[in-house]
Amino acid sequence: MPPTEATRPAAVVLDVNETLSDLGAVGDRLAAVGADPQVAARFLPAVLRDGFARTLRADPLPFADVAADVLRAELAGARLDRPLEDAVAHVLGAFDEVVLHPDVAGGLRRFRDHGVVTAALTNGGLATCEALLERAGVREDVVHVLSVETVGPWKPHPAAYGHALDVCAVAPAEVLFVAVHPWDLDGAAAAGMRTAYLDRAGTGTYPRHASTPSLTARGLDDLARQVLAD
Amino acid sequence: MPPTEATRPAAVVLDVNETLSDLGAVGDRLAAVGADPQVAARFLPAVLRDGFARTLRADPLPFADVAADVLRAELAGARLDRPLEDAVAHVLGAFDEVVLHPDVAGGLRRFRDHGVVTAALTNGGLATCEALLERAGVREDVVHVLSVETVGPWKPHPAAYGHALDVCAVAPAEVLFVAVHPWDLDGAAAAGMRTAYLDRAGTGTYPRHASTPSLTARGLDDLARQVLAD
Repeated sequence: MPPTEATRPAAVVLDVNETLSDLGAVGDRLAAVGADPQVAARFLPAVLRDGFARTLRADPLPFADVAADVLRAELAGARLDRPLEDAVAHVLGAFDEVVLHPDVAGGLRRFRDHGVVTAALTNGGLATCEALLERAGVREDVVHVLSVETVGPWKPHPAAYGHALDVCAVAPAEVLFVAVHPWDLDGAAAAGMRTAYLDRAGTGTYPRHASTPSLTARGLDDLARQVLAD
Repeated sequence: MPPTEATRPAAVVLDVNETLSDLGAVGDRLAAVGADPQVAARFLPAVLRDGFARTLRADPLPFADVAADVLRAELAGARLDRPLEDAVAHVLGAFDEVVLHPDVAGGLRRFRDHGVVTAALTNGGLATCEALLERAGVREDVVHVLSVETVGPWKPHPAAYGHALDVCAVAPAEVLFVAVHPWDLDGAAAAGMRTAYLDRAGTGTYPRHASTPSLTARGLDDLARQVLAD
């Protein structure tokens, strides 16, 4: 059945880290300072673990502060090519040079061309996200650039999704929330949004204990084609 | 200044995974089924990430269900020596054979000998924790074996620590909470407990954005000596 007006979303809200951006630069810089590959494997899950933990006890921290503390712990025992704090700063600096996945720009443009309100909603910093979109030349295709730092709690706390709903001024059911992370889609679904899982690797696995995503696509361009049926 | 009655806790509440137990068996089984070392590095942070995420949206899941989903996702693309579900079951089975760190039994015994109420509070399953303590021959030295599954929210949600306070029937300030994980100590401190950080590796680093632990020790036996001053 082709999508109809009834299923076309009024707004598409997109996660940012790994959903829009390729964080490969972070792993590259970790390797450059002397960290072993296990540190790169653990870095992002550990940042989310600790960021979520702070939200659970109602005292959330900025992403950069959590990330710096995780890096200090992970790099403390490593044989680094520079002092620890310099290594931490160098790795965090990678967030200022990460790029978008190649499917993102075309997908964003297509949604905008069809009058869909686009918003980015990140657990990361607002300025970092703005800079990412500017560097990639897609800032004008994202109507609202939003960070949980404005409200405090990190996704998947309901208040984080509520912030996007407030700014976009739409009902939850009118939103298609897009992410590569099941925990994020699950939170958006709990907030009443429809969800689209970007499965770039095409693994086809999805957590049994998460709500099933409304749509699955190989990239944002593929998703736009599915949703807009053009 | 030596500890006095004023600083001796009425109860010692202990985290379980990695604080009491050595999860090396999990890594061994991951390697045995064919997972690369990055999967072992990421496994526990990813389980906590996803378990915390479910608590954030007020729909917590049992530890074993979260762990199974993480393993399915992590192992889906790997070259395994057996079918995926068999590999997941084999790795999860490691939790039935993990052992205590060598400093734990002596420390527990010393607290019990001095009349301190001891409790284990795990984000894992209650039966798994009971079995761990039975296998190690220390079950009688732990007065209360508790799991967040009884109340729902995972640590560091305040309700998880509240469960231990209720069962031990003590005020928060009378409790010394013991863990190797800063996120857990931070949650216990937010709940009003004193905290003891077990730093077995002796790294000496602690997150800048976490509350400073009341005590630091190299193991549970060392901690008991510090607290009981005998």
